[in-house]
Amino acid sequence: MTQKHYVSETLIDGIRVSFEAERTLHEDVTSHHRMELIENRVFGKVLLLDGAVQVTSADEFMYHEMMAHVPILAHDDPRDVLIVGGGDCGLAEEVLKHRRVRSLTQVEIDPNVLDFSHKHFGEFNASVFRDERFQVEIADGAAFVRETMARFDVILVDSTDPVGPGAALFTPAFYRDLHRCLRPDGIAVTQSGVPFLQKEDFVASIRGLGAAFDVATCYIVAVPTYFGGHLALGWASDTASLLEVDPDILRERAAGLATRYYTPAIHRASFVLPGYIAEAVEQADRGR
Amino acid sequence: MTQKHYVSETLIDGIRVSFEAERTLHEDVTSHHRMELIENRVFGKVLLLDGAVQVTSADEFMYHEMMAHVPILAHDDPRDVLIVGGGDCGLAEEVLKHRRVRSLTQVEIDPNVLDFSHKHFGEFNASVFRDERFQVEIADGAAFVRETMARFDVILVDSTDPVGPGAALFTPAFYRDLHRCLRPDGIAVTQSGVPFLQKEDFVASIRGLGAAFDVATCYIVAVPTYFGGHLALGWASDTASLLEVDPDILRERAAGLATRYYTPAIHRASFVLPGYIAEAVEQADRGR
Repeated sequence: MTQKHYVSETLIDGIRVSFEAERTLHEDVTSHHRMELIENRVFGKVLLLDGAVQVTSADEFMYHEMMAHVPILAHDDPRDVLIVGGGDCGLAEEVLKHRRVRSLTQVEIDPNVLDFSHKHFGEFNASVFRDERFQVEIADGAAFVRETMARFDVILVDSTDPVGPGAALFTPAFYRDLHRCLRPDGIAVTQSGVPFLQKEDFVASIRGLGAAFDVATCYIVAVPTYFGGHLALGWASDTASLLEVDPDILRERAAGLATRYYTPAIHRASFVLPGYIAEAVEQADRGR
Repeated sequence: MTQKHYVSETLIDGIRVSFEAERTLHEDVTSHHRMELIENRVFGKVLLLDGAVQVTSADEFMYHEMMAHVPILAHDDPRDVLIVGGGDCGLAEEVLKHRRVRSLTQVEIDPNVLDFSHKHFGEFNASVFRDERFQVEIADGAAFVRETMARFDVILVDSTDPVGPGAALFTPAFYRDLHRCLRPDGIAVTQSGVPFLQKEDFVASIRGLGAAFDVATCYIVAVPTYFGGHLALGWASDTASLLEVDPDILRERAAGLATRYYTPAIHRASFVLPGYIAEAVEQADRGR
C-alpha cells in the first residue's frame, strides 16, 4: 500500500485542513502565486493558491451563486457587471446566466490564471469563454477601479484573503473607488472573510465599506471548503430599499434560473445574521 | 524548535481536519470510546471521540443554542425536557436557561463522560451540576426511550455520528420511540448530520422521522468545527403550527435569554434551506 498524499491548507495558525490528493494535476509557482491543483474524492478538483483553497469542483456553486445572484436579482436593471478577481470564472458563469446582464468585465491581474481555469475548470466555465458579453481586462484590480471611465451597476469583488496580493482589495481607498465607478443604485459585493476566525479583518472590511457607502452590511453563506462557519459577503450600496426587495419580484426575476444553493427565500434569509456576526457588524458601524 | 503536534479528525475519507495541540489534557480508551482532549489556540479545549470532534470551548455555543432554544421557544409549555446523549452538558446549560423548563432528564450511556465533562468543561457547564432540575439516567438512550413511562414536551437527541455506538439513535424504531414518549404538541430535535457530506444518512434520518411524525423537516446551523457546510438539525412534531410561531411571541419568550448565535430572527431564517438541502428533504418525503 502506498502512503496517502495530502495537500494542506495553512491559512489559520493552529488549524490545518488537508485534502487527500488522488492525483496531482498541476503544481507551479508564478510571479503572483504558488499554485496546486489536485483531484480529491470528495471535492473533485481542488485549487490552492499560496496554501489557501480557492475553488473546488464540488462546492464552487454555493459561493458563486450567492455572490452573483443576490445583488443581480436585487437590482432593477443590472446591465453592466464588473468582477474583480474571480480567476476560476465560476462567478462569471453565474453572472452570465442572467439575460438582463448586457456586459460582464472581469479584471484579472495574472493572465495565466484565465488560461489555467479555461483548461482545468471547463465543467463549469466553458460557457463563459463562448459568451460575447464576457470581456477580460488584464490589470491590477485596485488600479482598474481607480482609473477606469466605465460605470457599472453591480461590482463583485471575488478576492483572495486580505494577505499578500489580495490585501489591496480590502482597503478604504479601494472601497471608495468601487463607489466611484458604480452607477447610482449600484451594488458592490465583496468577499469579506469568515467572521468567526477573521473577526478583525471582517470588521475592518464592513467599516471600510460603510465609510464609502450609505448602506454597508453583509449576508452569509456556508461553504464546506471555507472552514470556520459562515462566510460573509459584504454588501454596499447607497440605496437601502435594495435590501428589502419584494419576494414576488425576486421569484419573478429568478424564474428559469438554474441554481443548487440560491433560492429567493435563501436570498432574504441570508441577510439574517447569527448574533456573533450581527454584533461584529454593529462594532463596524460604531467605528464609522 | 520542537515539532508541532496535531490531532486529526478522520471522519470523512479523503479529508482531514487537524488541530494543533498546544497541550494534551487527556487521552483515554474507555469501553465505549477513544477519547482525546487537547488545548488549541483557536478553539480552546477540543474533545475528540473516536476521531470525530465532539465539542470545543470556542464554538460549542452555536450548536447548543440552536438545538435547545429553537424547539423550547417554539413550544407553548416546555415543562419537561429530555436530552439523549449530550455528554459535555453544553446543551443542558442552554436548556436550563429557560425558567419555563421544570425538569431536565439527561440519558447518558457512559457514566465516565459526565464526570469528565464536569471536570474539564466547567466554563460552560458548571451551572448545570448545581441545578436541581437536572437529573441524569445512566442508560442506553435507545433502551430508555423504548421503556420509560415518563413523558416529555421536548426531546433533544445530541448524538455522535451514525456509526459505532451512535447508530442506534438513527433508526426508524428509535424515532417511533421518541414519538411514544413525547406529549401531544411535543417536539423532537435530532443531530442529523452534514447534508453535503452525509447526504444518504441525512435523507434516511429525515425519512425515519417522517415515518413516525406528521411533520418532519430540518433547520440549519453553521458550526466551524462541524466541517462541510451547514449542519442539519432534524425537527419532528405532530403540530405543523409550531414551525410558524409568531415572531413577536418568540421575542417575548426569548427576552432576557443570553445568547451569542440564536436570535428570534435566526430562529425563523434557519428553516429556510439552501436548494441542495431542500432537495434532499424532498427526496426524504418522496420515500415516505
